[in-house]
Amino acid sequence: MTINHIIESQQFTLPKLKELFERTEQMKKIVARGGTMDYSNKIMANLFYKPSTRTSFSFASAMLRLGGKVLSTEHASEFSSEIQGEMIEDTIRIIGNYCDAIVLRHIEEGGAKRAAAVSEVPIINAGDGSGGQHPTQALLDLYTIYNECKTLDGLSVAFIGALDNGRTVRSLAYLLAKYDRIKLYFIAPEEMQIKPDILEYLDKRNINYELSLSSKGILSKVDVVYQTRIDKERLKKKNVNFENYNIDTKVLQTMKYDAIIMHPLPRSVEISSEVDNDPRAAYFRQTKNGLYVRMALLTMLFDEN
Amino acid sequence: MTINHIIESQQFTLPKLKELFERTEQMKKIVARGGTMDYSNKIMANLFYKPSTRTSFSFASAMLRLGGKVLSTEHASEFSSEIQGEMIEDTIRIIGNYCDAIVLRHIEEGGAKRAAAVSEVPIINAGDGSGGQHPTQALLDLYTIYNECKTLDGLSVAFIGALDNGRTVRSLAYLLAKYDRIKLYFIAPEEMQIKPDILEYLDKRNINYELSLSSKGILSKVDVVYQTRIDKERLKKKNVNFENYNIDTKVLQTMKYDAIIMHPLPRSVEISSEVDNDPRAAYFRQTKNGLYVRMALLTMLFDEN
Amino acid sequence: MTINHIIESQQFTLPKLKELFERTEQMKKIVARGGTMDYSNKIMANLFYKPSTRTSFSFASAMLRLGGKVLSTEHASEFSSEIQGEMIEDTIRIIGNYCDAIVLRHIEEGGAKRAAAVSEVPIINAGDGSGGQHPTQALLDLYTIYNECKTLDGLSVAFIGALDNGRTVRSLAYLLAKYDRIKLYFIAPEEMQIKPDILEYLDKRNINYELSLSSKGILSKVDVVYQTRIDKERLKKKNVNFENYNIDTKVLQTMKYDAIIMHPLPRSVEISSEVDNDPRAAYFRQTKNGLYVRMALLTMLFDEN
Repeated sequence: MTINHIIESQQFTLPKLKELFERTEQMKKIVARGGTMDYSNKIMANLFYKPSTRTSFSFASAMLRLGGKVLSTEHASEFSSEIQGEMIEDTIRIIGNYCDAIVLRHIEEGGAKRAAAVSEVPIINAGDGSGGQHPTQALLDLYTIYNECKTLDGLSVAFIGALDNGRTVRSLAYLLAKYDRIKLYFIAPEEMQIKPDILEYLDKRNINYELSLSSKGILSKVDVVYQTRIDKERLKKKNVNFENYNIDTKVLQTMKYDAIIMHPLPRSVEISSEVDNDPRAAYFRQTKNGLYVRMALLTMLFDEN
Repeated sequence: MTINHIIESQQFTLPKLKELFERTEQMKKIVARGGTMDYSNKIMANLFYKPSTRTSFSFASAMLRLGGKVLSTEHASEFSSEIQGEMIEDTIRIIGNYCDAIVLRHIEEGGAKRAAAVSEVPIINAGDGSGGQHPTQALLDLYTIYNECKTLDGLSVAFIGALDNGRTVRSLAYLLAKYDRIKLYFIAPEEMQIKPDILEYLDKRNINYELSLSSKGILSKVDVVYQTRIDKERLKKKNVNFENYNIDTKVLQTMKYDAIIMHPLPRSVEISSEVDNDPRAAYFRQTKNGLYVRMALLTMLFDEN
Repeated sequence: MTINHIIESQQFTLPKLKELFERTEQMKKIVARGGTMDYSNKIMANLFYKPSTRTSFSFASAMLRLGGKVLSTEHASEFSSEIQGEMIEDTIRIIGNYCDAIVLRHIEEGGAKRAAAVSEVPIINAGDGSGGQHPTQALLDLYTIYNECKTLDGLSVAFIGALDNGRTVRSLAYLLAKYDRIKLYFIAPEEMQIKPDILEYLDKRNINYELSLSSKGILSKVDVVYQTRIDKERLKKKNVNFENYNIDTKVLQTMKYDAIIMHPLPRSVEISSEVDNDPRAAYFRQTKNGLYVRMALLTMLFDEN
């Protein structure tokens, strides 16, 4: 028997994404009704080598809303006080005895793949290293755009921030490239611009994109602004103008009335809190979608495996 | 829709306290029967910025006894490894997507109010800063007195210890002042005496009270001794006699046979362990009441909101 | 009413072990069917003063598979931010109000006994100090041998490693000595050999045993190899040959075809990962048995108390 895992965004084909979004809509209805599904004999383990209460709670809540049960640690690196650095393979083989699915946040790129290679229960990659993958974030981002804009075809999307090590931006750009007539803007200071491998991939798929040093003149044209963290102090030292990369009420006024603003959160100063009450601010709705998408992904794994 | 929160003792009127105590009695019966109530589609999140296993377990147990589910962290300050110090407002807006009520222990006075201002789910303040509030502790204290003494009118209550920064003493004194013919004694070294704002409040309510440097001559007269922590070493340095502020078997002998001894716990040396087996030692029963009172508070929030 | 606790291996008589193994077989069937038992009104608290995610997850999973609920901390030493070192007795009396059983990992030998002396709910000792007891590990080890070898009589068992502070080896040797025609081998460098108290005990029970400086010539004769951790660097410094105390494919070839290899885990280099795929490698099955044995122990406590 082969086991299905969720390791990287690349494994999601268009039909799979369609199925995921349909299941996500179902989950939303179930939660709205205050119901739970009957996965009461399933146990999910949150195995986090680095704390991330946000992601850990999101998965745990998803599992509880399904009627299932949760084991949780955010200090898996303290897994044993007896030896330093047990192999991830041993840990996974042991924890797999105690649960029906493992949500893994590892510290090394490729950790999730190593885990999946030996696991007898499905692995969900909840982030493995800063250069690694975090596929459920990319999927909830994509679903949020679909849910807010009612389509994924023909959209223009601007990514802003330190895009060079933006795991979420890279994965989302990859997924958007599957849809028709997409236009992407990458807005960042030169040395923080998105890495060439993604651009090569977009070229291959004939995706229309532009690189820019400033959001000025661009944000008035796009349907989605995907804002990410950017270090104000680092910009100041390089004499780069922060105003080219942030969102405040002034910027809001230039945006289309039906555009949306997303952010993987946590945010710092790059989105002013005065923006929060504008209906275009979609970032808190985005985190709520994380719950539904993760519920949907868990049901897919439990039903398939 | 306005949401009800539990932020400070002051929000509890006499009729509200009556309702709370009635619900608490019900909860006690349900637990005694080994039953649970059907809040199985509700999730409570323990969001603690500082560890307090005692309080965290008490709330979690209360929610589980109601049939509900629990998410829990005692390291919310490690909420994100990506940025330092996310605003409490953002955290609350996100966590509110994953649960139906948030039990918050924050580190800053006023943290619970800030949380409630933006929250879409009820907030329960489980302590915010040492000068702040911890209303559920005050309510379980009040309930314990009611439960042990069968009334709250006409009681005399002595508070002993470092009363200057005693969050629990302040809140309990506030609540007791709502009842008839109350007499309060505040027993502390001069520089650790209760702060004037509470005394002004008691004056306004015409509450009879006395300040004293020693428990000698007082403990034989009171119905309730509310002992709190006091630093033995600190007293020694100031040449203050510890014997004026502690409870041991010698002190016990001077007390009324139907008096009770309370303590918010954890205790240090201020109550000798030889006192534990005396029926007047109510401090462990007090922690048990915490379970029932918190169950009752949760049902009030879920039923009202 | 006296309360049953699980404090040390010594309390398990042969009839009690028989009952435990019968219950364990039942639990295995229930889990295989994807079922849960109805302990839904029971709460188990994991109270760990030292992190051990493996043991904590194993107990928590056992409780969840029984349909019960779990409270959990691996940082009980941070129990209160207010005072340092609350007495274990006070902590137990408080936590006992919030649950129906306490799984305790304490840091001091004898901690579990102190806890049991005051507890109103059953205590399960999940390890108390390195010289202390860890009875559920010994029981799952014994069950694994019984399950793999289909008997406990007439077996020969070799223990390898740093046996001087091997809590698990000591307890398992103690339990094996209850069965007929047992032969034990203790293989360790001289200064890490098992302590005399265990040998005196074996002498009293007329158990046949041998001490050896090397596994050479012994592993070909035994039914069970119980490998434990051994510090390769420490051996090197003493000019002791690591090859006398480890298991790799070369050693495997000398072993009986129906022998089994056990390890309390986590392992370091003392068992090569190339051994993992051999059917005689029983150490991952051993951890799975931990789940079933702990489920069985919990049902015994809940049904008896």
